[in-house]
Amino acid sequence: MKVHIVYAHPQATSFNGALLRRSVEALESQGHEVQVSDLYAMGFNPVASAHDFKERRFEGHLQYDREQKHAVGQRGFSDDIQAEIDKVLWCDLLILQFPLWWYSVPAIMKGWFDRVFANGLMYGQLGRFDQGGLKGKRAMVSTTTGCFPDMVEAGGIMGHLDVMLWHLQYGTLHYVGFDVLEPFVTYSVRYEDDAARAQYLDALEARLRNIEQVPLKSAHLNEEFGADWKLKAGIAPRTTGHLSFPGSPA
Amino acid sequence: MKVHIVYAHPQATSFNGALLRRSVEALESQGHEVQVSDLYAMGFNPVASAHDFKERRFEGHLQYDREQKHAVGQRGFSDDIQAEIDKVLWCDLLILQFPLWWYSVPAIMKGWFDRVFANGLMYGQLGRFDQGGLKGKRAMVSTTTGCFPDMVEAGGIMGHLDVMLWHLQYGTLHYVGFDVLEPFVTYSVRYEDDAARAQYLDALEARLRNIEQVPLKSAHLNEEFGADWKLKAGIAPRTTGHLSFPGSPA
Repeated sequence: MKVHIVYAHPQATSFNGALLRRSVEALESQGHEVQVSDLYAMGFNPVASAHDFKERRFEGHLQYDREQKHAVGQRGFSDDIQAEIDKVLWCDLLILQFPLWWYSVPAIMKGWFDRVFANGLMYGQLGRFDQGGLKGKRAMVSTTTGCFPDMVEAGGIMGHLDVMLWHLQYGTLHYVGFDVLEPFVTYSVRYEDDAARAQYLDALEARLRNIEQVPLKSAHLNEEFGADWKLKAGIAPRTTGHLSFPGSPA
Repeated sequence: MKVHIVYAHPQATSFNGALLRRSVEALESQGHEVQVSDLYAMGFNPVASAHDFKERRFEGHLQYDREQKHAVGQRGFSDDIQAEIDKVLWCDLLILQFPLWWYSVPAIMKGWFDRVFANGLMYGQLGRFDQGGLKGKRAMVSTTTGCFPDMVEAGGIMGHLDVMLWHLQYGTLHYVGFDVLEPFVTYSVRYEDDAARAQYLDALEARLRNIEQVPLKSAHLNEEFGADWKLKAGIAPRTTGHLSFPGSPA
């Protein structure tokens, strides 16, 4: 299996760094090929702009996704973007390793999506969700947080983890076609002792050694939606974002 | 009223730019004071790092939020961060104007949260949510998206708008204490004609002229949660993130 790990933490000696190293060791010891994008170490630029294209289809007014579509056919992306695109297309499994900042990824990783997940290659007229450009590949979030599990379970003060990560797991990873594995979450890492941290490292290694057994997040198929973009009659919603909410027009 | 608008779009002639200009005009014509942070024009750096602090409390291993807490007392942030902190503390109303990229804000705005919403000033031991450092202030999301309203209503293919924006409206803005107004969303802007776009501009102006009438997103109070971090018995969940979900241990 080919694994691409995208890693975002400013401090190599962080626990995120330890999780990254353990992942690489566990995967390589099983014979998998691993490529790592260490975004901080690379000095990755997260700010999408006109400089991302070697040639513009439309001079003047920048329409970023239309320029992406134009760049796809002629490898017209800036070199840093093309290198990341190549890694994503190469891999069978994408792992995102990051600390949870503001219920989401650090900005340097958000910009990796903004610039690398290109219209015309990973989504667009070709399709999205189960028809996204990366269909057949899997993705997994591995994140660390200072909060406790109770806080992100049902009724927890932070709100449910599935709602917190919806924009990332469904709106980003599944949008471009990935089948999304259940996330690996390290809780309250700062308040734990070395033994607890060692257990987390071992748990991540065990998960990677049994990656085929990790359950997928539930998802809907495009064909389950009608011409009105709504779930067809008789299809029960089975994802966090498709349930009905108080105040919804449902 | 003092209004701080944080704006993120790489192209000044975009419809986001038009929405920004209309907002400033509408607010100033009513006698409000307005400050704009045009993140692209400012060349704002969204990447949190050790360079964000003039002096480190802990040399070596970077713990970003602990350094933030240290910097608060002595205005020890880099000048670009301190300038943004000052604007946020100055305002009564914060408006975020941006295109919806990957169900979220562009990376340059995500990094504005990462670097400006500082531990020890806007959240932390002082409190969070209704006890956050910015309590008493209001915030509003104004975003543009290529999708259609049906797609983000209940049962819509993208998932519900409230779930999409949970990480931003609750996990970021409300986390630091803002009362969050219903978002202003411009749909399918690329597929609309000039008349429809003019209607959106007028609708935003009308909303800003009647800002006191804009409903707030529902939120829970800290006191509604017990020592186990869960909603107390008898408190019905009333936000998107606190409802129960299939598969939850609820």
